[in-house]
Amino acid sequence: MLKPPVAIVMGSQSDWPTMRLAAETLENLEVEYEARIVSAHRTPERMVDFATNARAEGIKVIIAGAGGAAHLPGMIAAMTTLPVFGVPVRSKALSGMDSLYSIVQMPGGIPVGTLAIGEPGAINAALLAASVLALSDEDLAERLEAHRDRQTQSVPQFPSDNE
Amino acid sequence: MLKPPVAIVMGSQSDWPTMRLAAETLENLEVEYEARIVSAHRTPERMVDFATNARAEGIKVIIAGAGGAAHLPGMIAAMTTLPVFGVPVRSKALSGMDSLYSIVQMPGGIPVGTLAIGEPGAINAALLAASVLALSDEDLAERLEAHRDRQTQSVPQFPSDNE
Amino acid sequence: MLKPPVAIVMGSQSDWPTMRLAAETLENLEVEYEARIVSAHRTPERMVDFATNARAEGIKVIIAGAGGAAHLPGMIAAMTTLPVFGVPVRSKALSGMDSLYSIVQMPGGIPVGTLAIGEPGAINAALLAASVLALSDEDLAERLEAHRDRQTQSVPQFPSDNE
Amino acid sequence: MLKPPVAIVMGSQSDWPTMRLAAETLENLEVEYEARIVSAHRTPERMVDFATNARAEGIKVIIAGAGGAAHLPGMIAAMTTLPVFGVPVRSKALSGMDSLYSIVQMPGGIPVGTLAIGEPGAINAALLAASVLALSDEDLAERLEAHRDRQTQSVPQFPSDNE
Amino acid sequence: MLKPPVAIVMGSQSDWPTMRLAAETLENLEVEYEARIVSAHRTPERMVDFATNARAEGIKVIIAGAGGAAHLPGMIAAMTTLPVFGVPVRSKALSGMDSLYSIVQMPGGIPVGTLAIGEPGAINAALLAASVLALSDEDLAERLEAHRDRQTQSVPQFPSDNE
Amino acid sequence: MLKPPVAIVMGSQSDWPTMRLAAETLENLEVEYEARIVSAHRTPERMVDFATNARAEGIKVIIAGAGGAAHLPGMIAAMTTLPVFGVPVRSKALSGMDSLYSIVQMPGGIPVGTLAIGEPGAINAALLAASVLALSDEDLAERLEAHRDRQTQSVPQFPSDNE
Amino acid sequence: MLKPPVAIVMGSQSDWPTMRLAAETLENLEVEYEARIVSAHRTPERMVDFATNARAEGIKVIIAGAGGAAHLPGMIAAMTTLPVFGVPVRSKALSGMDSLYSIVQMPGGIPVGTLAIGEPGAINAALLAASVLALSDEDLAERLEAHRDRQTQSVPQFPSDNE
Amino acid sequence: MLKPPVAIVMGSQSDWPTMRLAAETLENLEVEYEARIVSAHRTPERMVDFATNARAEGIKVIIAGAGGAAHLPGMIAAMTTLPVFGVPVRSKALSGMDSLYSIVQMPGGIPVGTLAIGEPGAINAALLAASVLALSDEDLAERLEAHRDRQTQSVPQFPSDNE
Repeated sequence: MLKPPVAIVMGSQSDWPTMRLAAETLENLEVEYEARIVSAHRTPERMVDFATNARAEGIKVIIAGAGGAAHLPGMIAAMTTLPVFGVPVRSKALSGMDSLYSIVQMPGGIPVGTLAIGEPGAINAALLAASVLALSDEDLAERLEAHRDRQTQSVPQFPSDNE
Repeated sequence: MLKPPVAIVMGSQSDWPTMRLAAETLENLEVEYEARIVSAHRTPERMVDFATNARAEGIKVIIAGAGGAAHLPGMIAAMTTLPVFGVPVRSKALSGMDSLYSIVQMPGGIPVGTLAIGEPGAINAALLAASVLALSDEDLAERLEAHRDRQTQSVPQFPSDNE
Repeated sequence: MLKPPVAIVMGSQSDWPTMRLAAETLENLEVEYEARIVSAHRTPERMVDFATNARAEGIKVIIAGAGGAAHLPGMIAAMTTLPVFGVPVRSKALSGMDSLYSIVQMPGGIPVGTLAIGEPGAINAALLAASVLALSDEDLAERLEAHRDRQTQSVPQFPSDNE
Repeated sequence: MLKPPVAIVMGSQSDWPTMRLAAETLENLEVEYEARIVSAHRTPERMVDFATNARAEGIKVIIAGAGGAAHLPGMIAAMTTLPVFGVPVRSKALSGMDSLYSIVQMPGGIPVGTLAIGEPGAINAALLAASVLALSDEDLAERLEAHRDRQTQSVPQFPSDNE
Repeated sequence: MLKPPVAIVMGSQSDWPTMRLAAETLENLEVEYEARIVSAHRTPERMVDFATNARAEGIKVIIAGAGGAAHLPGMIAAMTTLPVFGVPVRSKALSGMDSLYSIVQMPGGIPVGTLAIGEPGAINAALLAASVLALSDEDLAERLEAHRDRQTQSVPQFPSDNE
Repeated sequence: MLKPPVAIVMGSQSDWPTMRLAAETLENLEVEYEARIVSAHRTPERMVDFATNARAEGIKVIIAGAGGAAHLPGMIAAMTTLPVFGVPVRSKALSGMDSLYSIVQMPGGIPVGTLAIGEPGAINAALLAASVLALSDEDLAERLEAHRDRQTQSVPQFPSDNE
Repeated sequence: MLKPPVAIVMGSQSDWPTMRLAAETLENLEVEYEARIVSAHRTPERMVDFATNARAEGIKVIIAGAGGAAHLPGMIAAMTTLPVFGVPVRSKALSGMDSLYSIVQMPGGIPVGTLAIGEPGAINAALLAASVLALSDEDLAERLEAHRDRQTQSVPQFPSDNE
Repeated sequence: MLKPPVAIVMGSQSDWPTMRLAAETLENLEVEYEARIVSAHRTPERMVDFATNARAEGIKVIIAGAGGAAHLPGMIAAMTTLPVFGVPVRSKALSGMDSLYSIVQMPGGIPVGTLAIGEPGAINAALLAASVLALSDEDLAERLEAHRDRQTQSVPQFPSDNE
């Protein structure tokens, strides 16, 4: 049985408050996903299993979130040719600057498409995954356009003191 | 007539020495592309035209490189729901740290998948674009796997003093 | 009907607690303004409309505030030759360092006069706008001088433990 | 006899290779200027004289460039209500990051419109000064528009390997 | 009538919670001082008066604290040859990194001895001032040694869970 | 009488909330240790005594934690050839970035193995010390493996909303 | 047949000019080692093989150097309980700051003892490895002490203009 | 026999090209000094001897330069109550940002007056030392004023293209 097209993986339970925004965004777009904890450092075998089997299991796009010396997105990317999108989770001491550098500064040869630090990055990883799937799914493309339109409509014309 | 599936755009001729590595990588993978200069700041109309028409013209994935206050990737992403991958070009004063922040720190709602600063980022933007296209192109998926395998084979076992 | 001479635009309602200090400062100086939400990323058409029509509508100076990958000031500057002053709003992960770099590091050709991160920057954007308008408005020049004098007078001679 | 409308001041002869780009840009726009060395640290009296007399002498806009602990733009701004635009000159150890912070992070009350680090900042300080003067000089406004148009026209459509 | 040997100046009332630690440290060492608010930006004349008269009024050492684009220590140093010690006060957005760079990166020719960001810096500015005065005041030298000894004695041998 | 094989030293009582995690980790692994306060700056003699006698007293590995201009790990390393592991404690203004640079950037010739900023670093210093001792202690090696296994087992498969 | 006690691994041939200083330092101390290229990203299988077999093959200490998003040291540490020392190799855009954060900011549970960026770090990784091995090798401990003594002797008393 | 009033110490011969500017500046002011290499890490005993005996030997002010994890100024300050002025020498990877943090971020209790990174810092350490000595040496105070005046006179009025 095939897995859903998007896998959301994260290095730790503590990343979930950030990464759940990716999950919610996918739900809004009616994109199926699974969310799993896969730690590059504490469960390296699980990570190898996940990454090397992802394509065969039917996963199309991988969203990986991690903080600090965030090796998960890059290591998964090293073991699959599926698109991998990385979310740098805010870290305690360096506010995610370490997470960002650890994810984005990949060497030529192994790409990770990196999103913003923290919640905006989680939302955007889901939107980017959807935009990739939408290339061969017209319905999703329309839902994505509609989501974008609603977003545009939701921006008020004037700032309000009552918020 | 449709455009090739990948568009490589960059803010300035001076970005080409970096961005041509994206072009060469796509050529190696036999992925068609067009490369254009589209400056968010100096040719904003051209940018609007490009971004708003990209999907209709058949473009599937956009690679956008820019340096300094690098607004091109994010602004294109604001005007299309195609996947946009951003390459922060090294800048003179801040070595691309400004380019990186300007590209990666997008607000929730408008995603840009950001790659590493400079040449590795350009190579990886191409590989990521290919991995996206390969989701619906088995031949490309195989070429991508073969490229990855060759890359793995090319890593020597031992460091050499003669290089 | 002409617009007031100063437009305060911001990327999001969440920028208003910062940008309202620009509004209040203009009010203190009796300079008319309008405040609007114009998101480079979520309402790019609104931004294009605003920027391309600003001069014709009678706007003289534009104050633009944004956070994170803050593209609003630079993109407006790309579409008008009016003076644009940018306010980097503090961001959650990077405290506005990303906002600052995204606004200030504009390429040669498209200027944005950038103020300090956060509240002081909003106040100063208003003062700078007033100083520009005062070049052809003697009364405003005097009000600006008086404001500066009051500011100087308000500085106590000695620090107080009771504050 | 009145001074020209723009004063370009800089902390040291070593800033001139950067700041001359402001001078050349003003010449291209047919805006008169004077360029002077005024060091906040080595010639504080000259600085006080310059800043306190600038308005009376007919100066309209001040462009101030400095590097390192760059106090010149902010100190001039403290002694005049003319618009002051600051250019952070690249420094040896910190590439102008120190210059940038020293110029842009002014407290609320004393504005300095800050441009990019180094050459692009010098060019843009001149363009911003011109945009301010153009508010009451239609001819200059047209020259500025023409300059902008030429700039837009000069951007090639495609990157070239021959540069 | 002569002033006390140490002047503590600060840019704003808001610096006092930091700078009062310098005052308290001097009191502990029985070194007389005066504490004043002197803003480089809001009261430049007061600053010029203070700095140019300090030596003649009997001041021996100046401690200057400021935050953000912290110009006060360097500008005072530009107008006196008395030793000036600078304290970078923590700033809201950049935690005092801007204050530090603005104070410490002085050009060759005008020295400011810079202490740590925030409270430790205020304490140490006082200790450094005392060490300077102690060069010609044996009693103070002894009090300083005694203070250092007490400090050494106060360090417990073992960490305690009860604190 | 010999000391336990691991010494945990820290510059101040205020480092204990961080460094106690090193102590607890060693306890979990049944590795004996002593914890002491040794300030490079306030008790330099105590530091010299500690470092020069450590080997003779039977200490095998030294864990040193400090914050700010964190000189303790490097100075101890300068006075012993025992392995020294440094923990950068989070500092108030710079979140431990200063502590990190002060500990890790040792010149060639005097090594300090540096761990992460704050609590994770304290835990890992203990684990690294244990891994060193385990090279000649099979039982400890087994406990370390078991600890690692438990850690792997403790990672849940799926993120939970109930935490 | 057992491997030598120290393994020096690096992500790429381009790391060798840095990492050979670790090799030379070990040679000076008569510590046997092997040097291999093991790329976390390009040869993940080789890395898994290396890390999971290292202990059984007789390796005692692992020195791992890598640049950019430097995942090699941390990933090896995730798959062995041998001591791992990481060397952040200088990177093109960010001078090794990315390498440093990617190596040092490991989560609690998986330690990497991190050395300085670049050549000093490579030298010190070797010295730290030797200090670990010296805990159970008296001869090596003496050679290490002698090396330290020679180093101390080699420091001249006075700076020389002739170098 | 007493030592000269100023000691210039540095961690390594490689610091001399920077620190000799301190020496030359003192020579210009006719202030006697000695210059020595004292490495906190490679010659800790020499450092202890130097610091603990400095006062008794007649030294009045200590200038200490070091790079990277620059512990020399702070450790000397820990062992004397003489004024210590620190010069952060530019480092290879981090351009002296590590040196700066390691010197300036001293804990409350042990002051180091820190100057700018590199050559300007060396010049200014000498000027600051002279300003301290000038408090009890009228002739030096006059030479210092004269030096300052010459410096002011040497600033040209206009930038020159011929330099």
